[in-house]
Amino acid sequence: MKQFDGITNQHVRELDKRHVFHSWSAQAKLDPLAFASGAGCLLWDYEGREYLDFSSQLINTNVGHQHPRVVRAIQEQAAQLCTIAPAAANLARGEAAQRILARAPRGFEKVFFTNGGADANENAIRMARQVTGRDKVLSAYRSYHGNTGAAIVATGDPRRVPNEYARGHVHFFNPYLYRSEFHARDEDEECERALRHLRRVIECEGGGAIAAILLESVPGTAGVLVPPRDYLKGVRALADEFGALLIMDEVMVGFGRTGAWFAFEHFDVTPDLITFAKGVNSGYVPAGGVIVPERICAYFAERVFPGGLTYSGHPLAMAAIVATLDAMQEEDMVGNAQRIGRDVLGPGLRALGARHAAIGEVRGMGLFWALELVANADTRAPISATHAAAIKAECLARGLLAFFVENRVHVAPPCLVTAQQVDDALSRLDDAFTAVFGSATGA
Amino acid sequence: MKQFDGITNQHVRELDKRHVFHSWSAQAKLDPLAFASGAGCLLWDYEGREYLDFSSQLINTNVGHQHPRVVRAIQEQAAQLCTIAPAAANLARGEAAQRILARAPRGFEKVFFTNGGADANENAIRMARQVTGRDKVLSAYRSYHGNTGAAIVATGDPRRVPNEYARGHVHFFNPYLYRSEFHARDEDEECERALRHLRRVIECEGGGAIAAILLESVPGTAGVLVPPRDYLKGVRALADEFGALLIMDEVMVGFGRTGAWFAFEHFDVTPDLITFAKGVNSGYVPAGGVIVPERICAYFAERVFPGGLTYSGHPLAMAAIVATLDAMQEEDMVGNAQRIGRDVLGPGLRALGARHAAIGEVRGMGLFWALELVANADTRAPISATHAAAIKAECLARGLLAFFVENRVHVAPPCLVTAQQVDDALSRLDDAFTAVFGSATGA
Repeated sequence: MKQFDGITNQHVRELDKRHVFHSWSAQAKLDPLAFASGAGCLLWDYEGREYLDFSSQLINTNVGHQHPRVVRAIQEQAAQLCTIAPAAANLARGEAAQRILARAPRGFEKVFFTNGGADANENAIRMARQVTGRDKVLSAYRSYHGNTGAAIVATGDPRRVPNEYARGHVHFFNPYLYRSEFHARDEDEECERALRHLRRVIECEGGGAIAAILLESVPGTAGVLVPPRDYLKGVRALADEFGALLIMDEVMVGFGRTGAWFAFEHFDVTPDLITFAKGVNSGYVPAGGVIVPERICAYFAERVFPGGLTYSGHPLAMAAIVATLDAMQEEDMVGNAQRIGRDVLGPGLRALGARHAAIGEVRGMGLFWALELVANADTRAPISATHAAAIKAECLARGLLAFFVENRVHVAPPCLVTAQQVDDALSRLDDAFTAVFGSATGA
Repeated sequence: MKQFDGITNQHVRELDKRHVFHSWSAQAKLDPLAFASGAGCLLWDYEGREYLDFSSQLINTNVGHQHPRVVRAIQEQAAQLCTIAPAAANLARGEAAQRILARAPRGFEKVFFTNGGADANENAIRMARQVTGRDKVLSAYRSYHGNTGAAIVATGDPRRVPNEYARGHVHFFNPYLYRSEFHARDEDEECERALRHLRRVIECEGGGAIAAILLESVPGTAGVLVPPRDYLKGVRALADEFGALLIMDEVMVGFGRTGAWFAFEHFDVTPDLITFAKGVNSGYVPAGGVIVPERICAYFAERVFPGGLTYSGHPLAMAAIVATLDAMQEEDMVGNAQRIGRDVLGPGLRALGARHAAIGEVRGMGLFWALELVANADTRAPISATHAAAIKAECLARGLLAFFVENRVHVAPPCLVTAQQVDDALSRLDDAFTAVFGSATGA
């Protein structure tokens, strides 16, 4: 446990509430927790209280907090060169791109670096429009792609609505069997009908007008909506049939989260463009990017690419990428994510779901899970906002951080989580559910 | 001089060319310089060759390269906590906001942090649209505001054209006496006519439809277009008359660049929203943001602000802000920028302009200058692309970095530059001009 020179949580929280304007919030209703430091799956506030972080913050700290190798790489790069303009060459930049490409499918050639996931999607959309000469971008209603001009309109979730100032974006319904838009009774039917729906949207928007289909490989904030086995293959076929590019948004799921380097690997598809951020360096330094295949690089060999940014390929972010991916590889964190997900976290959450009637569905893969909470198992009506707030409060009271969205608890620990930490978290979750909804059923 | 373990420039450049996709470029035409480290106004490549950096990279390293206090702050924060989600409170985050607000005009209350300048402008535009309930954003043709969806369409320069996928953006001509759009003969006339033009655009677009007027206080990439003394005051009055918000983009000019903390201070105006990035922490860690006044904070006290991002208030970036602003203050870098600009760099560039017929105009303030190069002093026809490339090559051959845009050389050294370094740079520039255009006239 660290000491923080007598700094109190209260001081830090007051400073924050006085001076910091917060994301996606009504500013008067904030009551932020203060965090000073961490290690692995643990975080501490300024007074030494410990939290078990099963949120990975915003699903980004795949190597956990304060991985010594990544911290050291940032410190060493800081000592050598903190910043250099994108037009220059720098060793960390070239090596980071090389590390990323080594994990991408065959045929990907270069990396365009951005500051985060939103501008990664912005630039992938830009490339698709340039290369195809087409305008429209299709994306799912149940999606989140970022907060900037085009990214927030590509986003399907309701945060799009007050931000609709970009043109050329069309949305479709993606598969979600638990609340099927297609009146489907099983996964195969959901898949087939969702693909038929997507085909109809393409046809009605004009097959020759679609620049790209943009999809999270596993939609994350929308609820960890693991797609039916053959859905992405079907989307790939539709993109090919209509000459649209397939952009897979791997911002939340890339770099180990689902037990693979990229989530699309589970579904036997290869996208045309891959966007990433978060896990690539666990968010230790802001970074994102687009992985670009040979044919799109060739398109821009003699044509100017009309996009760019000051901090593209930022040396500190790049050094953090190199160290993060090396550490993940050498410590087999992707394998750990796969094994712990399959053998411990998945079964444990399913058992929790069987014990608590409020848990309507348990979905996920690897270390990427959601519990969908319902007031009534038959109607599947979501729990009230009051109950949702109570579950969050009971988890926090037990020192457990998760990712709370609407009527769901998303569970996504760092990729180096141990079976024992998972058991600990499951037990705290169990207690929180019991506290809010009463005694569990079954053993 | 550092040693870099036998790493060659050639190795770093090849790695870059093979794996890194570059901003605003045709990818086959790149020939990047390699940089390994630096200090103050100096940079070194991997083989120890020294460059004098009078570009501050992309006009961001206001504290120079590798300022020891900022490097140490990043290393210490890295040792404590690299990343934490925006919803949390963290000491570095609160202190960074406090440091920024201490330099802002009275009435500014909170800071919304972003990853860079583009998303700072995105979020300022978002706030203006929310608060006014209006749609249209006015910005100047001679401007650059970033590369994301709304920011690139707010941008007026030609990079906007292949990226026009956002609605609600209208452009107007800003003052530029040297190439007046208004047939003006002097600065007062340019000012009066530019304001009249802006009024007419507002009236024709519908006075009640304008959410915001977005302006760089001193348009930067567009050519260091220092506005006539009363222009911004006139814009402020128009914004008030029509109920639009005035957003000043201080991304390039904020935090010392013009010899003041904010460039708008020179013009006796106070904007409604201030956007920043670059100089706030010299770009040592990606960061930007919006400085938000009380009345806009009050608007969002009970209403949800519909924007946000994973790395908002990133601890490493925040620690770098605190150290950068403290260092600038204690070492009086803003005063130095003002004095060196007024007494050494400005007079020196003007003398250079008097000696070389190719220099059609010398413009600037503080440490923010542009030389406008012309083939003919009477017609003011820009120099050819060949001559522009030759000037850049001759400067690089002399180890001088500047910021080369179209027919211009922008000169913007770090704010701790010395008179001797300025003299050195001026002499290299003089030689470069002589090499390209022949012997200078005058002494």
